[in-house]
Amino acid sequence: MGIKITGIGSYVPKGIATNESFESNDFYNEDGSAINHDTTVIIEKFKSITGISERRYVENDLNNSDIAYFAAKKAIEDAEIDQETLDYIIVAHNYGDVKHDSNQSDTVPSIASRVKHLLGIKNPNCVGYDLLFGCPGWIEGMIQANAFIKAGIAKRCLIIGAETLSRVVDKHDRDSMIYSDGAGATIIEEVDERGGILSHISATYTLDEAHFIYFGETNNQEVNDNRKYIKMYGRKIYEFALTNVPSAMKTCLDNAGVSIDDLKKVFIHQANEKMDEAIINRFYKLYKRKTPEHIMPMTINKLGNSSVATVPTVYDMVLKGKMEHHSIEKGDYVMLASVGAGMNINAILYQV
Amino acid sequence: MGIKITGIGSYVPKGIATNESFESNDFYNEDGSAINHDTTVIIEKFKSITGISERRYVENDLNNSDIAYFAAKKAIEDAEIDQETLDYIIVAHNYGDVKHDSNQSDTVPSIASRVKHLLGIKNPNCVGYDLLFGCPGWIEGMIQANAFIKAGIAKRCLIIGAETLSRVVDKHDRDSMIYSDGAGATIIEEVDERGGILSHISATYTLDEAHFIYFGETNNQEVNDNRKYIKMYGRKIYEFALTNVPSAMKTCLDNAGVSIDDLKKVFIHQANEKMDEAIINRFYKLYKRKTPEHIMPMTINKLGNSSVATVPTVYDMVLKGKMEHHSIEKGDYVMLASVGAGMNINAILYQV
Repeated sequence: MGIKITGIGSYVPKGIATNESFESNDFYNEDGSAINHDTTVIIEKFKSITGISERRYVENDLNNSDIAYFAAKKAIEDAEIDQETLDYIIVAHNYGDVKHDSNQSDTVPSIASRVKHLLGIKNPNCVGYDLLFGCPGWIEGMIQANAFIKAGIAKRCLIIGAETLSRVVDKHDRDSMIYSDGAGATIIEEVDERGGILSHISATYTLDEAHFIYFGETNNQEVNDNRKYIKMYGRKIYEFALTNVPSAMKTCLDNAGVSIDDLKKVFIHQANEKMDEAIINRFYKLYKRKTPEHIMPMTINKLGNSSVATVPTVYDMVLKGKMEHHSIEKGDYVMLASVGAGMNINAILYQV
Repeated sequence: MGIKITGIGSYVPKGIATNESFESNDFYNEDGSAINHDTTVIIEKFKSITGISERRYVENDLNNSDIAYFAAKKAIEDAEIDQETLDYIIVAHNYGDVKHDSNQSDTVPSIASRVKHLLGIKNPNCVGYDLLFGCPGWIEGMIQANAFIKAGIAKRCLIIGAETLSRVVDKHDRDSMIYSDGAGATIIEEVDERGGILSHISATYTLDEAHFIYFGETNNQEVNDNRKYIKMYGRKIYEFALTNVPSAMKTCLDNAGVSIDDLKKVFIHQANEKMDEAIINRFYKLYKRKTPEHIMPMTINKLGNSSVATVPTVYDMVLKGKMEHHSIEKGDYVMLASVGAGMNINAILYQV
């Protein structure tokens, strides 16, 4: 008996924003001072650190709940289930629906209610709620659904991670180039097989870390409104992640009783290529191992950082054979791990 | 063995907005047409339906996370626990932090992370997340915490309901007079006693109902911005609630195996006095009973509808002996019930 993913789907927005599309932006430092480089140099340096050459933006007429619905529909089809049998719809996001011509987050009704409405599910016992937990929200939704199944209050859950960060970026902030849009969704349920979710870990660091990712004003001091955008202290986050994520991953793996040598893939939140590489290297170093080749599938180069959507999206792509050098088979041990606003960290050790 | 509330606290904002304070408002219908009554008549009619004569608004320098923290601190003190032993902080809300001079919901970091930061909790294994589920969010947080304890992933949880609806009201909409601010919080944990949460029910209706409560433009058509406010179709909500809430309450009570005659109090979401009375009457009618006197403590007259905060606040007030004709003792059976945006309904049958 295991609690397993029985269906998965993701939605990658059609709009491609290349690094070149930022060349006419005026970037400023956080304190409003000018950056002493040409924009092309800024972008080149950005790419070398983050690994991002393109990111995806939703079209103007789409909202977060729409792409959440697209991913959910695919996951339901993939699982070949009757959607009326779902006990929960859990949507992880952080900004709700932000229309393209608005700065307001629209969270009433919940995105889960909107998705349920779009799916046309009639069953009122299918309970929909939204979960705010930073970028690790989708993994946290998986952990919550796992608990509901174990507690006997659910049998089958739909967990969605969906975000449209393009709607909350400050075009005068270099970090805006990191953010992307996307959605991923899974169905989990108890099945008559070994494996599934073997262990999980979650943590929230707030003493010094609560506001490492925050809602702040534009870096352009000539703009005199009080409109807020997604902001981050990149250096602090990097150090925080390096200090805390590898050890959380180790605890999760050890709690599952699985050997590091049996770990087939690590699906990590696509936050920043250099940071992700540093995390995986330190993780293997905790076991006195060199990082194996092709252990960590990366989509950030073309898809950017789409918050809650990155992990289910990259997992979906590997499962569907869309990523070179990456495949997984029944019985394989894989890890899902994330870090983000809160600051929150989580991980799941999963047997396919 | 039971999962019980071991501490409770609430925060009632100091600012009192009387019905008279709305007398200079220009109210319009939803379609922008004028209302053919003097404002004093509109307000009198409003009061006769909703029972509201005053509501509470937070002061300008406070945000939702601040009042969530105030209530949380009281609950922790009431439980006489070491806050470092908390496994979860669950904050139910619907609009995040909205500063008094802003129209933007600030949800990054989560309100749970902000509360944890304000409390000064160091333990990273105390996981904080936000839950969006309309007005029934606090009860839903109790249900989720109950599941985490049953699943073995938590022992002690802090559940907060906090909302500042004063920050999202359209002053040209009569319904704006319903909304209020407030926060309530509970600690729940497994104790070596009978009782606690005996049964619970949750439901989400979205086919026709998803947008009964929504984010919409001002009723004043002379205002030409696209700023959105909390809006509702009151008549539809009333009919929906009357049709679905009493039967959900009955299912919850029957599932607990408790007789209607043994029910001591019903703590219902303070949405609208007439609606709440109609719900309780229909609930008792399902058992062919007359509604007992003093079964349903009401705070709406002085506190308005503070969304997720109403149920924990009224429960706290009764427990602390602050409401005439209302007291509960160990062993009593009580019901907590709510209905709101989503449209969501839930209920808990609880033995004190």
